[in-house]
Amino acid sequence: LGTLAHVAVLEKAKVLTGAETSKLRTALADLHANASALPLSGDLEDVHMNVEAVLTERVGDLGKKVHTARSRNDQVALDLRLWSRRQTIALGLEVHHLAGNLLALAREHPDTILPGHTHFQVAQPVLLSHTLAAHAARLARDLDRLHDAYARLNISPLGAGALAGTSHPIDPTVAAKLLGFDAAFTNSLDAVSDRDFVHELLAALAITLNHVSGLAEELILFTHPAFGFATVDDAHATGSSLMPNKKNPDVLEIARAKAATALGALAASLAHTKALPLAYNRDLQEQKRLLLDTLPIGPATVRVVADLVETLSFDKAAMRRAAAAGHADATELADYLVRKGVPFRDAHGVAGAAVHLATERRLSLAELPLKELQRLHPKVGADVAAVLGPEATVAAKSSPGGTSPRAAARALKLVEADVNGRAAFFYQTATALQRTEAALTTPARSAR
Amino acid sequence: LGTLAHVAVLEKAKVLTGAETSKLRTALADLHANASALPLSGDLEDVHMNVEAVLTERVGDLGKKVHTARSRNDQVALDLRLWSRRQTIALGLEVHHLAGNLLALAREHPDTILPGHTHFQVAQPVLLSHTLAAHAARLARDLDRLHDAYARLNISPLGAGALAGTSHPIDPTVAAKLLGFDAAFTNSLDAVSDRDFVHELLAALAITLNHVSGLAEELILFTHPAFGFATVDDAHATGSSLMPNKKNPDVLEIARAKAATALGALAASLAHTKALPLAYNRDLQEQKRLLLDTLPIGPATVRVVADLVETLSFDKAAMRRAAAAGHADATELADYLVRKGVPFRDAHGVAGAAVHLATERRLSLAELPLKELQRLHPKVGADVAAVLGPEATVAAKSSPGGTSPRAAARALKLVEADVNGRAAFFYQTATALQRTEAALTTPARSAR
Amino acid sequence: LGTLAHVAVLEKAKVLTGAETSKLRTALADLHANASALPLSGDLEDVHMNVEAVLTERVGDLGKKVHTARSRNDQVALDLRLWSRRQTIALGLEVHHLAGNLLALAREHPDTILPGHTHFQVAQPVLLSHTLAAHAARLARDLDRLHDAYARLNISPLGAGALAGTSHPIDPTVAAKLLGFDAAFTNSLDAVSDRDFVHELLAALAITLNHVSGLAEELILFTHPAFGFATVDDAHATGSSLMPNKKNPDVLEIARAKAATALGALAASLAHTKALPLAYNRDLQEQKRLLLDTLPIGPATVRVVADLVETLSFDKAAMRRAAAAGHADATELADYLVRKGVPFRDAHGVAGAAVHLATERRLSLAELPLKELQRLHPKVGADVAAVLGPEATVAAKSSPGGTSPRAAARALKLVEADVNGRAAFFYQTATALQRTEAALTTPARSAR
Amino acid sequence: LGTLAHVAVLEKAKVLTGAETSKLRTALADLHANASALPLSGDLEDVHMNVEAVLTERVGDLGKKVHTARSRNDQVALDLRLWSRRQTIALGLEVHHLAGNLLALAREHPDTILPGHTHFQVAQPVLLSHTLAAHAARLARDLDRLHDAYARLNISPLGAGALAGTSHPIDPTVAAKLLGFDAAFTNSLDAVSDRDFVHELLAALAITLNHVSGLAEELILFTHPAFGFATVDDAHATGSSLMPNKKNPDVLEIARAKAATALGALAASLAHTKALPLAYNRDLQEQKRLLLDTLPIGPATVRVVADLVETLSFDKAAMRRAAAAGHADATELADYLVRKGVPFRDAHGVAGAAVHLATERRLSLAELPLKELQRLHPKVGADVAAVLGPEATVAAKSSPGGTSPRAAARALKLVEADVNGRAAFFYQTATALQRTEAALTTPARSAR
Repeated sequence: LGTLAHVAVLEKAKVLTGAETSKLRTALADLHANASALPLSGDLEDVHMNVEAVLTERVGDLGKKVHTARSRNDQVALDLRLWSRRQTIALGLEVHHLAGNLLALAREHPDTILPGHTHFQVAQPVLLSHTLAAHAARLARDLDRLHDAYARLNISPLGAGALAGTSHPIDPTVAAKLLGFDAAFTNSLDAVSDRDFVHELLAALAITLNHVSGLAEELILFTHPAFGFATVDDAHATGSSLMPNKKNPDVLEIARAKAATALGALAASLAHTKALPLAYNRDLQEQKRLLLDTLPIGPATVRVVADLVETLSFDKAAMRRAAAAGHADATELADYLVRKGVPFRDAHGVAGAAVHLATERRLSLAELPLKELQRLHPKVGADVAAVLGPEATVAAKSSPGGTSPRAAARALKLVEADVNGRAAFFYQTATALQRTEAALTTPARSAR
Repeated sequence: LGTLAHVAVLEKAKVLTGAETSKLRTALADLHANASALPLSGDLEDVHMNVEAVLTERVGDLGKKVHTARSRNDQVALDLRLWSRRQTIALGLEVHHLAGNLLALAREHPDTILPGHTHFQVAQPVLLSHTLAAHAARLARDLDRLHDAYARLNISPLGAGALAGTSHPIDPTVAAKLLGFDAAFTNSLDAVSDRDFVHELLAALAITLNHVSGLAEELILFTHPAFGFATVDDAHATGSSLMPNKKNPDVLEIARAKAATALGALAASLAHTKALPLAYNRDLQEQKRLLLDTLPIGPATVRVVADLVETLSFDKAAMRRAAAAGHADATELADYLVRKGVPFRDAHGVAGAAVHLATERRLSLAELPLKELQRLHPKVGADVAAVLGPEATVAAKSSPGGTSPRAAARALKLVEADVNGRAAFFYQTATALQRTEAALTTPARSAR
Repeated sequence: LGTLAHVAVLEKAKVLTGAETSKLRTALADLHANASALPLSGDLEDVHMNVEAVLTERVGDLGKKVHTARSRNDQVALDLRLWSRRQTIALGLEVHHLAGNLLALAREHPDTILPGHTHFQVAQPVLLSHTLAAHAARLARDLDRLHDAYARLNISPLGAGALAGTSHPIDPTVAAKLLGFDAAFTNSLDAVSDRDFVHELLAALAITLNHVSGLAEELILFTHPAFGFATVDDAHATGSSLMPNKKNPDVLEIARAKAATALGALAASLAHTKALPLAYNRDLQEQKRLLLDTLPIGPATVRVVADLVETLSFDKAAMRRAAAAGHADATELADYLVRKGVPFRDAHGVAGAAVHLATERRLSLAELPLKELQRLHPKVGADVAAVLGPEATVAAKSSPGGTSPRAAARALKLVEADVNGRAAFFYQTATALQRTEAALTTPARSAR
Repeated sequence: LGTLAHVAVLEKAKVLTGAETSKLRTALADLHANASALPLSGDLEDVHMNVEAVLTERVGDLGKKVHTARSRNDQVALDLRLWSRRQTIALGLEVHHLAGNLLALAREHPDTILPGHTHFQVAQPVLLSHTLAAHAARLARDLDRLHDAYARLNISPLGAGALAGTSHPIDPTVAAKLLGFDAAFTNSLDAVSDRDFVHELLAALAITLNHVSGLAEELILFTHPAFGFATVDDAHATGSSLMPNKKNPDVLEIARAKAATALGALAASLAHTKALPLAYNRDLQEQKRLLLDTLPIGPATVRVVADLVETLSFDKAAMRRAAAAGHADATELADYLVRKGVPFRDAHGVAGAAVHLATERRLSLAELPLKELQRLHPKVGADVAAVLGPEATVAAKSSPGGTSPRAAARALKLVEADVNGRAAFFYQTATALQRTEAALTTPARSAR
């Protein structure tokens, strides 16, 4: 694709005649259409020399002219950006897929309650839908980050030559436009050496997979029999070779581990370019290898987790039971007293005493006799019953962004709008790039 | 500041009366004005308990009411975002300062030539201004990245409570607006646990310092006597305790090393949050400590390098001499032949033979007799003289973004526009936040 | 201390007379004894110039002679090694403390059973003592690694000068011996630039804290009410500002996070020295700062976890109950059939079918009627009862290193011997260094 | 190999008869001899199921018995250790190869002088041999580290089962001995989950490649025409596609970059196992993949650099010239004055003034008239001539480990002894493992 665009540049610069351009375009379009069948010889330095060799075989010495006004340096920078664009879009689409599956699940559970955690201790009951939406909200930011990274990535370096530009009267915007870039480079030394996008895509990937690792961790924990909140479908779990009773969440464990792999690749990428003088240095080849190995982990990992999420089943009763235990409504009692005019710190003390009492008697707060509660503070009234227990606790958290069914439903819609709004860019860009590529590789284009 | 905003939230929610609000606002504004004199007791859990203690001392039990509808979890998330905003703006301003100094130097050297490198071997002569502008172009992207990160950072988490929202009828957008945030959070579980901005700011910092490390490396190399291209002003270098003849570029070495420090902090930050279940976990406190230690490295490092750059002096003759050596005009000879119709690969062979011949005779290509060149290829004409030598070589690279004086001057203006355009955001935001803070802490505000 | 040793070197080299040496030694020993009271002036370059200034104040021009045959480069390398030695020993002692506490707990629980996990799914019942010993076994390797790192650290660089040695007839082994080093450096260029020990200590620290993070994770999980296996003593947990019912394992969460901090410091340290040319570069100062910040995390973190472990209490019944659930004895059934001559893969199939049947009937395998089991495979006999249930399952794992009470007790003793044997080095070295230091700083020493 | 050893374990445990053992041993030895021809079916879970399938095809149901008393968990732990052992030895041998080549070059240059650097500024002249030996001294420590890591790696986990040991009366030391391990595991839970050796080998690799990166950096710099100290043989450099005059040190640039790749893998590996509960988790599979990708980088990278070093050529005159410039003998002048009784700090001032004077007059210190020097300090005598100039400066650094020809020669021998002494382990172990493997796979062994 890069060479097809470069041929158009050379035509406009009059390095190639219209006839030469036409001949080259036909040959290159054919090579592109049959790229997988291209014979690669190890005797030639790299893929580019192989392409040139085949081209020269087909169109004669004209094939050698194609490398005019181009260097390996701007060429590999271009190729890496073309490849990275596709990966970025693929990742965006899969992140949307996962977010979509999480939100679909959330909609199925408008009032399912489970215990919410802080410090991985039971804190307050929350809605399952609110929890799933929280994971989707993280992914919405990932889409945003990928979008921003794409803008910095989508600049064409073709025409920067080895480092200094070229003496041929080329117009780099011709190639930029044909290849669907937002713009051509500004400074040749920067164009051949800029690998910011490598760091930035790896950082965006590492953060995304960090989010996936958090989701994976929760699912691993909540499928443990001690919780029994969720069950992974058999198709997404494996058995044990020695223990017939086991069902292992391998997919989730590997997804969790991928966050570490991305983190390491990012650290390496930054160390690769640290303290490199201008302009191109061969260290960038090793960095490229790392990128090629690492970036595809993103869409693949997100996809398998999305598929797993789609088939999750939940045990509502187990979650409700766990949410009711542990006096997670103690905060509600404190808030109740605050609303009755008790200073917060004092209300907190009363709630603590009530928890102590309930634990001693092996009762829930809701089961404690009213008189006992009143002994702890005279402002407790019969209406306290309406704020204790998981449903009441959840319903009370009605502030915007909170976990009450109404607030959570509103928040869910906002997250949905966010996710879909941000994902639109990736669908549009995928389509646009397909059109761009088709236009570039279609013989009809030469009739323009 | 956070508590001042929260008081306004509580007033609107009618948790506080107008009189209570007024009293608290005055006390808090006073605390803020004399923040550095606030006595901090180690017996109290943290800075927040200290503030509450002093407040309660001054306004009585009313002071305890301030923590209503707020948790330590949304409070520390808020504080970390407020602090990170300032650091981000400080970094943006310093990056602009450095870019400005580089571009000012570039404008002073419109036709100074030095050897351009690839693989740190002399490749082609380039303009010093083009080189300096390349470094500025990198910093323009850094400003862009910081701007994008700021947008995701600038969301208020206040009102998310411990994890689930609150039962008080608060409006989180009140605090968001008063504190200059773009919006309030959407999902409470996400709001208290989201530390994406920590990763993202550290990534933006690591990439920025990577750029600084490349600049530092070049200056360290080019101040070595073997090059003698540049001299660091005595004020920015140190002597050696044992070697009186030494002038050490310590500032540059330390700046170079800071890129590694940022890289490590980023890796740590990602590892801190990997596989954490929702919502708040105390691991985030350790991550916070790391952020507080690391982010300020950015503005400080960029500033000292900016100051050093401002006082750099260059030895034009040494750079010209080095650019003339090494047959860096060989590519020009090849391009000359291409323009005469010789296929590129053949022209490349002729240029190689000419280099071989010149090296053997200890001449530059320009000094080789025309007949000798013509023996290598019949298409060489007398006009070849106009393309050999550093000035001709540089002038020839006249394509957009290239290193010819005209192309470089055009590119310089584009980079300048980029840098200044992107920096504007940081100046405007700094001013806006000052106004926001003043409004929040001025008693007059209560007259609203 | 370093200067005291250097004075002895200078005396032997006859740079200093006996009288000068004596005078300096007295002054330096006094400075050392009152080190904390040493006034440090920011006007002087560093701590070394401050020491020299005070010394010169006290003994006149003689104070300036002390820097003869020494450079800042070998001096800071020496100081960093002296400091790192102490930190390494401190870490070794604390690791032994933690391992000791784990093993003491293990001895208290010779037959307590809990579910063993793989893929964090219940796999087979294991002994608590075996689990605790597994954590101690990891720490034994940490001690081993620290010991090996110490050997490479414990080399004196003093006498290497700036990079090339010195023209004074010094004997570097004099200082090496007085300071308790195993040897003096071999090559001056290597001596001033070698920071392998920084990487290596950070790697040993990162691995140790990785082990601590695994222990912390298990304790965080097992103190969750869903498990209820263990309880952290109140002195080592904190309450929640909003939720009176919470008891948060903050210590464990922060300990877990420290593993990430160490990982980041290690990555930074390696990036600091990557691609540095010989010999000293100021980048090493930034790396030093990082080491000073990071290494002390080790002993501090290990100590608080050791203290917490000491006060852990376990709920045996809860663990036994969890171990009995989930058909973790399915493997035993399979093994039983293998011993009866059934091929392993077939036996595995039978066990799977039995699990299926038991799950359907909501029984444990031990509760399934014998006839039902025999229907699955004719080789099942009445003696199958002896292999089902957690106690039988644990007892059966009697191979060396296995979890049967006898095998585990034997393994426990081996781990104990390992831990204590490896820790001995740190106690002996701590004592030896104290003696070395005392000898160096005692005026009596001058009577030698 | 692992299965062959396990068969011997099962024979001793009487799970297999002598006849069964013999049959299996013959079949497995044959599989081993033709391992590369083993058909691998993607339908089967992994390589182990493929081996079992082929085995069962050949020996019938007996093939299924082989997995008795073994789990995939101890099996993969064993395999990873077997593979890592080979890689460690391969790395040790290549490190010795590189160190040997450096030392051979050093011996060829007993009195070649080049400028020594600190802060990458010319500091003092040093011997080339001393510089090369410094690089070899680093590699000696690498060998030491690998040796220590090997000891912790060389423990057999076979017999630990899934996590708890096995109910078969096996003796794990049988397999350990047959496979050449130093010992069998102590604790089954630790045995299946211990991946310390992954971290430790990656750390040893990262430090080794850090050393290689420093050597590569120096060679890249010193082959730059501004220095012209060294020339890389054409066989180890590449040309430029666009610049016929270029000779690029690609091998060195890629070697330099590999240090960053190893650093990233180490960070990832630590993040993989951070906070994992006992025992086996599938995250370890992802960590394994990373290890398989990364460890082989070591021997390959060290080898190509060793080959390049072997063919390096040096320009002695260029190095001598650079060493004479820059007043690197200023320290000598200061030391000369110290020997005459001038306090060091004062002598340093005089030397500084002399440098200033010489620079002004464009002379070397040796060329300054004696009277001028005496005007700076009366203690300067005619004998000062003997200490100025690079040869005198180098010769003066005669302290142990210093750069004088005699001291350097002595230091060189010590480094050589170190390198060879530490390398011996790798040769002996390579041979021993070959014998062990041969014994295990030879039918004759069954006659034992």
